[in-house]
Amino acid sequence: MGELVRFGVAVDEELLEKFDKLTVARGYANRSEALRDLMRDALVQQQWQANEEVVGVVTLLYDHHARSLEAQLTDIQHKYHEQILSTMHIHLDHDNCLEIIAVRGTGRQIEELATKLIGMKGVRHGKLTATSTGRGLR
Amino acid sequence: MGELVRFGVAVDEELLEKFDKLTVARGYANRSEALRDLMRDALVQQQWQANEEVVGVVTLLYDHHARSLEAQLTDIQHKYHEQILSTMHIHLDHDNCLEIIAVRGTGRQIEELATKLIGMKGVRHGKLTATSTGRGLR
Amino acid sequence: MGELVRFGVAVDEELLEKFDKLTVARGYANRSEALRDLMRDALVQQQWQANEEVVGVVTLLYDHHARSLEAQLTDIQHKYHEQILSTMHIHLDHDNCLEIIAVRGTGRQIEELATKLIGMKGVRHGKLTATSTGRGLR
Amino acid sequence: MGELVRFGVAVDEELLEKFDKLTVARGYANRSEALRDLMRDALVQQQWQANEEVVGVVTLLYDHHARSLEAQLTDIQHKYHEQILSTMHIHLDHDNCLEIIAVRGTGRQIEELATKLIGMKGVRHGKLTATSTGRGLR
Repeated sequence: MGELVRFGVAVDEELLEKFDKLTVARGYANRSEALRDLMRDALVQQQWQANEEVVGVVTLLYDHHARSLEAQLTDIQHKYHEQILSTMHIHLDHDNCLEIIAVRGTGRQIEELATKLIGMKGVRHGKLTATSTGRGLR
Repeated sequence: MGELVRFGVAVDEELLEKFDKLTVARGYANRSEALRDLMRDALVQQQWQANEEVVGVVTLLYDHHARSLEAQLTDIQHKYHEQILSTMHIHLDHDNCLEIIAVRGTGRQIEELATKLIGMKGVRHGKLTATSTGRGLR
Repeated sequence: MGELVRFGVAVDEELLEKFDKLTVARGYANRSEALRDLMRDALVQQQWQANEEVVGVVTLLYDHHARSLEAQLTDIQHKYHEQILSTMHIHLDHDNCLEIIAVRGTGRQIEELATKLIGMKGVRHGKLTATSTGRGLR
Repeated sequence: MGELVRFGVAVDEELLEKFDKLTVARGYANRSEALRDLMRDALVQQQWQANEEVVGVVTLLYDHHARSLEAQLTDIQHKYHEQILSTMHIHLDHDNCLEIIAVRGTGRQIEELATKLIGMKGVRHGKLTATSTGRGLR
């Protein structure tokens, strides 16, 4: 773990007051915690833009009755087995499945994989969520 | 399953041509599939805004060394056990954990739960991804 | 103008180092300036969610040959004259117009107005950009 | 103007019904108009990613009392005069100015310009809105 450092920030009184109210409303323990979150969020965005190694989550909603869709989704996942960390599958009701796939790779690899999965015939809704490997985000 | 219906769309030639190139680039089987995806995406957004029953995915990145964080995350999840469908946990490296929580409830309930989890001291990055129960999204 | 206050933030060394690189890459004069920007951005989001008085920009791209579109856009703008601050119009080429409308009101009023304008037949692309009246954002 | 073409889309009955309700709620004249909007929005996103020539709007909120800010903003704008189409300035109150700058260039040029403007000391809030030159978006 890196060392904790402390630095000063100069802010207008009124901005700080409003920001403090917001951090309470969002359930943060304190101002530093809220600021660290904003800093990390800016860094995660930049890591994806710079094509660094990142972690992502692909969320797929589909009807498991769709012909051969499950087999095709599995096929694609095997082609990208080096990027796929784990998959969670939930039966939402008689028809609908939620499949959540944790992935790791460069931003570009993961966007390519997500595009393929989300574009499959029978997938009703799909999203790629960007997060980080956590390195340097303490 | 509902019945398939067919309807006509009038579009300028040039717009259609460009859109067709885009659907190929994104790996869609055909134009209808790409359009259905855009329609569903608009509907999912509207379901969240209207506070209907929805499905979401909370993605958390945290350091499992953070004091009592895991216990607190579990505590919160138990309070919302009616909204939580399932949780997947991945050990990214010696320090970093990826926790992915599938949730179901009204848009507001889920946003409240996500805000609590993401705001916890020790969570390095958090995101809420919005999807749908799949009803009416065929 | 409010008074400037100074407060300390505790951050892991590595996070701070990465954040500093990011602020340089984005052209900020210093770390405080970058942090103030993140704080204000979080506040602007919250003002819109809370339906407070806000400022927005509606961007419309349209073909001025579209029958009666200009007259209809003007009509709508007159109905909302209390919310509309000013309008800028740019002739992009022989066909395409860019119309940029600065608006002020509650989040809900402005979203209603933007939805009407963007949904007009003939508008090729439209966006609502959220900003603030500036009060309390120093 | 290109020719209007008509094509058929196959959609599940229930999806179409829900989508039709949404188009009415959003004030669209008909289903084709709503679908064209979704198609154009997907194209605009892709034009920006592909670094094509695009049109954008930079929205800046700032305090005109900030020392030498106005002069610096003007300086930057002159350096990018080939990209800047027009600027609208609104005096929101005694302190706050809203400046809206219409720009045209490659996605990368415009992002560079926007980053410089938004990062200036004294700018309280800034946003870049992406739209298109309108070519091929009929």
